Amino acid sequence: MASPLTPRATDFPRWYQDVIAHAELADNGPVRGTMVMRPWGYAIWERVQSELDARIKATGTDNAYFPLFIPESYLRREAEHVEGFSPELAVVTHGGGKELDEPVVVRPTSETVINSYFAKWIQSYRDLPLLINQWSNVVRWELRTRLFLRTSEFLWQEGHTAHATFDEARAFALRILTDVYAETMTDVLAASVVTGHKTVQERFAGAIRTWTCESMMGDGKALQMGTSHELGQNFAKAFGTQFSTRDGQLDFVWQTSWGASTRLIGGLIMMHGDDAGLRLPPNVAPVQVVVVLVRDEEGVRAAAEALVAELTAAGHRVRLDDRVDLSFGRRTVGWELKGVPVRVEVGPRDLAAGQVTVVRRDDQTKQAVPLGGVGDEVARILRLAQESLLAEATAFRLARTTEVATTAEAAEVAKEGFAVVPWSVLGEAGEAELAADGVTVRCLYGPGGELATGEEEGELFALVGKSY
Amino acid sequence: MASPLTPRATDFPRWYQDVIAHAELADNGPVRGTMVMRPWGYAIWERVQSELDARIKATGTDNAYFPLFIPESYLRREAEHVEGFSPELAVVTHGGGKELDEPVVVRPTSETVINSYFAKWIQSYRDLPLLINQWSNVVRWELRTRLFLRTSEFLWQEGHTAHATFDEARAFALRILTDVYAETMTDVLAASVVTGHKTVQERFAGAIRTWTCESMMGDGKALQMGTSHELGQNFAKAFGTQFSTRDGQLDFVWQTSWGASTRLIGGLIMMHGDDAGLRLPPNVAPVQVVVVLVRDEEGVRAAAEALVAELTAAGHRVRLDDRVDLSFGRRTVGWELKGVPVRVEVGPRDLAAGQVTVVRRDDQTKQAVPLGGVGDEVARILRLAQESLLAEATAFRLARTTEVATTAEAAEVAKEGFAVVPWSVLGEAGEAELAADGVTVRCLYGPGGELATGEEEGELFALVGKSY
Repeated sequence: MASPLTPRATDFPRWYQDVIAHAELADNGPVRGTMVMRPWGYAIWERVQSELDARIKATGTDNAYFPLFIPESYLRREAEHVEGFSPELAVVTHGGGKELDEPVVVRPTSETVINSYFAKWIQSYRDLPLLINQWSNVVRWELRTRLFLRTSEFLWQEGHTAHATFDEARAFALRILTDVYAETMTDVLAASVVTGHKTVQERFAGAIRTWTCESMMGDGKALQMGTSHELGQNFAKAFGTQFSTRDGQLDFVWQTSWGASTRLIGGLIMMHGDDAGLRLPPNVAPVQVVVVLVRDEEGVRAAAEALVAELTAAGHRVRLDDRVDLSFGRRTVGWELKGVPVRVEVGPRDLAAGQVTVVRRDDQTKQAVPLGGVGDEVARILRLAQESLLAEATAFRLARTTEVATTAEAAEVAKEGFAVVPWSVLGEAGEAELAADGVTVRCLYGPGGELATGEEEGELFALVGKSY
Repeated sequence: MASPLTPRATDFPRWYQDVIAHAELADNGPVRGTMVMRPWGYAIWERVQSELDARIKATGTDNAYFPLFIPESYLRREAEHVEGFSPELAVVTHGGGKELDEPVVVRPTSETVINSYFAKWIQSYRDLPLLINQWSNVVRWELRTRLFLRTSEFLWQEGHTAHATFDEARAFALRILTDVYAETMTDVLAASVVTGHKTVQERFAGAIRTWTCESMMGDGKALQMGTSHELGQNFAKAFGTQFSTRDGQLDFVWQTSWGASTRLIGGLIMMHGDDAGLRLPPNVAPVQVVVVLVRDEEGVRAAAEALVAELTAAGHRVRLDDRVDLSFGRRTVGWELKGVPVRVEVGPRDLAAGQVTVVRRDDQTKQAVPLGGVGDEVARILRLAQESLLAEATAFRLARTTEVATTAEAAEVAKEGFAVVPWSVLGEAGEAELAADGVTVRCLYGPGGELATGEEEGELFALVGKSY
């Protein structure tokens, strides 16, 4: 059975939609821009959640939950923030059959409501740092939506912290960027990420600095994978979040906020997918190994079940596919669409020769493996596939990244990839010029690609591209 | 330092609020009836989630996610359902700065939107059973709210399944009731639950039968801990969810839905709390053992850290409290308020004698334990505390449950506990009579307390009480 997908090279956006439909990742919701995450898509999200959550907790951050509904007046307290989010708000005007006295907005993000509690909970330097994260849904009424990448409602985590000094807040924002986001993207999602900070134009509404992880998708466009914001004292001043310092003064707290969302699944598809479907890095695959029963005969089933038990005991996530009422071809195409890293095919002919067929999803290699060697071979492939997908993504990004010296060259290169141009050449004027072609500065960084924490603008480089 | 709580016997509702505030479980949200779950409250919820989720997955159910917003028209398709939920709906009328063509409701539960997808995904008997669960927030605009027990927005899981026959749907609804809900309530939350089915008056809007787990709180009132509904073919007919049977006919699917929510945390407080605060059963405690450093001296800290390492390695959830800038008394009162099952106090005097002080939260016993014996003693206490809390809750419920022969007696007994009365005596007329006193039938069951799956009404008994 052939792949039901539009070839990726023919029509990338159509291919993307096809993968989502045929791998049964998601469906459009009934209300415009909303999304139904189907079991396979949600299982990938559960893996992403679990990897992010463990790293978030390792920073000393606690999970909590704040309400979905925020009084409209809260949003208005921070001027840039309300300006940034007003066009995207969903507003509840009626509750319990009556018109509400004050309309409430469905949270587009939770800085305002969380700050109203931080102001209550924080009294003294002893209460700092206060490190909170929540897993939740948020709503931003988007004009142009695309499954996973930009939906009116999406799932995410949003971290919110308060610190005694600018330096501590900066250090924490950077820790989240590197130890939580960049590490998860690289080690789990096999994404080749560039880290840096946003220009004033691109930063979060209400932040003094936004740090970002950017990846290149299979069509050369950028996807923002996660952002970590320094909020300075903006929200603290808007909400009166003050603390008594060690020497008895009153000061406003310094804050950060940071989020990563279900758009990461869109990134997984566009970074690693091919004409046969999704290719999941083993570390994020809900099923790492599928053992496919070719025909349901007694010895064959027993061998397949023994392999499932052996591989599960070795710590892998394994599923048995014994749906022999479906054609073998349809089943293998299905597992390739879903991107399961390793397929072990157990059939009577192979078994008679004391072997099974092992198929590696990322490079489609197929080999006969003696029964006794399956455990080692599967472990080897899972390790290799994780490394290969990252190496492939990195090579692709580097091949499509070009250093240029002018704004015009940057615009040209950005048609198919990333341009790197000195910020001293580009500047805000060049940034505005690029915007006319739908090209943006994805981030700024230092000469060696390092994070630029000072105000050393002369030495900054801009990573420029089109983005989702 | 004395407990900051209103004594439970003096004013139970006030004591409940005090526990929530002082154990830092939750706060009221800014919009009426909403709730902020603080880190300790949310950590308990994460434990409940993880225990329920594992059991739900063990039934073969997959997690998924459906949108928050539901078109108003969807709700109107099932007559009883819309009648039941209309008074509680929150309605979004504006999005992205414009009035919406069709207002959307914020989900009060997801039967309607999920059925619209089931109708699309289900074609044949091969697609059945379809077993889906989601973890989400839902909104019901409640008039009288109380933290955890009844909030306008709450967190829950809602399962939705479709089956080929009435019998399969019933069997699945019962499996969820017993293997997921009753087992989690009993083995994890140490709740003494009564299972049975609801009267027609009390069942879910749109269901043909509602199964329930009911527990008795510390004031003798009932709390509904989780419900599992048989929906018959009601939603299938409303949404056209049909499948082709093995013999080529078209039939509507038989469905179930089932949910448990953050109100379970309210139950934990009211079942097990005492005048010193929460008493958490070890299986649901985010921290099972707190090791309290009495004074920060080198040998003392080393001993405390070694104990933390040893107890963690033994598989317990352990935290070190080294906040020696706070008074010892304030810290111990704090851990008692939060309900941590075991407290190990490590101080210089004890250590000089080669021992530490081990305090058991549920019965407040305190003992000196030699350093080498702490691991065994903690394991023993955790096992015992889990058992004791369940035994205590069971004894309390039985002591406050009285078999009666008339509706008038039932009303009298229900002032302070549960009455059991033959349903043939009570009937719908008696049920209506009790309602005047705020007393309801919590559930019906057979003569031996067994689930009544037939239509054997003559042999049914009604469990009657006041409820939250």
